Amino acid sequence: MEGDPISSLCSPAMVVDVDKVKRNAEKMRERWSNLGVTLRPHMKTHKTIECGDIMTAGSRRCIVVSTLAEACFYADHGYDDILYAYSVPFDKVEQCAVLAERLSLFQVLLDHRDALDQLRKRPLTRGLWHVWLKLDCANGRAGVLHSEPEALRLAQAIFESEGVELTGVYAHCGNTYSCKGVEQIHSVAQETTTLVLQFMEKLKAVGITCKSSIGSTPSCSQPISDMAKLSEVHPGNYVFYDVQQSVIGSCSLEDVAVRVLSRVIGHCPHRNQLLIDCGWTALSLDGAGKLPTGFAVIEGHPELRLLSMTQEHGRVEPLLGQLDYSQYPLGTLLTIIPYHACATAMMHPVYYIHSAGRLVGKWIPTRGW
Amino acid sequence: MEGDPISSLCSPAMVVDVDKVKRNAEKMRERWSNLGVTLRPHMKTHKTIECGDIMTAGSRRCIVVSTLAEACFYADHGYDDILYAYSVPFDKVEQCAVLAERLSLFQVLLDHRDALDQLRKRPLTRGLWHVWLKLDCANGRAGVLHSEPEALRLAQAIFESEGVELTGVYAHCGNTYSCKGVEQIHSVAQETTTLVLQFMEKLKAVGITCKSSIGSTPSCSQPISDMAKLSEVHPGNYVFYDVQQSVIGSCSLEDVAVRVLSRVIGHCPHRNQLLIDCGWTALSLDGAGKLPTGFAVIEGHPELRLLSMTQEHGRVEPLLGQLDYSQYPLGTLLTIIPYHACATAMMHPVYYIHSAGRLVGKWIPTRGW
Repeated sequence: MEGDPISSLCSPAMVVDVDKVKRNAEKMRERWSNLGVTLRPHMKTHKTIECGDIMTAGSRRCIVVSTLAEACFYADHGYDDILYAYSVPFDKVEQCAVLAERLSLFQVLLDHRDALDQLRKRPLTRGLWHVWLKLDCANGRAGVLHSEPEALRLAQAIFESEGVELTGVYAHCGNTYSCKGVEQIHSVAQETTTLVLQFMEKLKAVGITCKSSIGSTPSCSQPISDMAKLSEVHPGNYVFYDVQQSVIGSCSLEDVAVRVLSRVIGHCPHRNQLLIDCGWTALSLDGAGKLPTGFAVIEGHPELRLLSMTQEHGRVEPLLGQLDYSQYPLGTLLTIIPYHACATAMMHPVYYIHSAGRLVGKWIPTRGW
Repeated sequence: MEGDPISSLCSPAMVVDVDKVKRNAEKMRERWSNLGVTLRPHMKTHKTIECGDIMTAGSRRCIVVSTLAEACFYADHGYDDILYAYSVPFDKVEQCAVLAERLSLFQVLLDHRDALDQLRKRPLTRGLWHVWLKLDCANGRAGVLHSEPEALRLAQAIFESEGVELTGVYAHCGNTYSCKGVEQIHSVAQETTTLVLQFMEKLKAVGITCKSSIGSTPSCSQPISDMAKLSEVHPGNYVFYDVQQSVIGSCSLEDVAVRVLSRVIGHCPHRNQLLIDCGWTALSLDGAGKLPTGFAVIEGHPELRLLSMTQEHGRVEPLLGQLDYSQYPLGTLLTIIPYHACATAMMHPVYYIHSAGRLVGKWIPTRGW
């Protein structure tokens, strides 16, 4: 199958353009190297060894993961310096401890005093718990609110705890996902960076120095100059990008490395629709109501909209006028650019990798938690 | 781990109450046995051997599948009489032929003359292509429209083709999914049944007799008497059921056999929210905007709403008033009843099976296409 054109694949199938992946990874590496900031790429979008190798330029060091399953998967494949950037879950403290005792550097994250107590109750047999404090800097998900007095107190408590090191302060600017255009990205990136840097000053004032890290593909693709004052950044989606990122302004549509291959499997003249073999099992339901072309962009067919999906079917209709079915005989290949690559990748047990449209291999992601 | 309480599982995890599964399967079997109609259960919701065995009462015969991957998976485990109920995709004709030559009875489905041509171009080395004609009876997805003259002509063409048998007429009344209550289900079931039976009469008038089948969990859970005139029914979701089915009127919430176990991982007093470790990777995004309690029902907590999800986080807020965080310490287990079991099951590489809350095993679904 290697060397065959991607059109030889049965559909639906997720295909990844490895040249775009390498280019996206290289550009991100270069950008942050020039800014003097450590790039700690996030693995959550793809969850594969091969793509991790590209993102880390083969070092297998200095990554972020979103699940313990990813942490174990990468550790099992020789990765180290892994940050499990998820408020340390109480049911997984023991597994985290085992990983921390096994790796040179396994780092966790927390945003609550009770989590710190959990770590203290399970001292490591060697080394320290390396702990990032998660700060909510107007993102509105995990993290202790930057302006709460508890944020500083918790940092101090981590710093002062025996067997525990305050490694850094971590913020995710996921609120860049509601941006449209570079100016808005800059504004959110500036706000997050400023809030984190102000917090670092507060820490300094009480005698604490540690690292700082912010993330999100939009801010790390379109950085502001103050981000050079951070220790690390931790974007992930950028290695694939997607329609959403192009709408936000992180990239152009040409940078998007992933597609779902799909075929026409039905003609429905009574509804002026086509059916394709791409349901939500192949694309996910992410992106509903976000694009004029529906749940995705159908490459080379700006006149078509992916109107709705059920488990294994997608309904496609023209934006205007009547479908000319002779243009889309059954079996016609339609190439879909996903709205959200993280959500689409999650649906696929295997990714088909190509270079210039010729298959070069497969990547198998890890799954579960 | 067998015998342990489900609360010993790390979260998120999908758990299945095997007693409810057996009861749902048994009730459906009994209902259709009493009506004298063959029950051909659909495997698409769970895609596991173990649940298929329960649905077929151990016969491993007479099933429907939605993907060729399922067909091969079940065939590899000794299943036979498999109906691949998906407009035969042109990229998989050869694989279908191989399966048809290997099994005693492998059946396909089509709704277009070009698909018939594809089958005729690949005559089987033994036996016939067993073909169901897919009819769209106001459902609005796959199928040739019942009222189109082409429907009858296509049935005749299948019937007259060498090497091909017209096995039956197949309609999916997925439009029952917009029903609220038994009366509305009955109305859609009646319409679909009547249209199929009228089509069978038209066939008879031109000298053709074959089977008839309609499906959907709502209509097969709340049948109308005319459905006894059909040869087969083909529901699938009923073995798990879900919140959606309880809202439609197919079942009560007590019949729902699946849950996602989740834990509180964050307190966000500045937003009056909790965070749980159930993002869309564990639940899917199906059900957005459908329930007053958000994306799902949190069992035993009618006062809580699952407001939104990102990849690994769920945001939970009270329907009214202020959260009392002392009621939900970090680590608290919250049990989530999914809106759409098919979509939730798809997200899990393993299902944890329990009886009365004690673990009895794991089921591993097949994936891909």
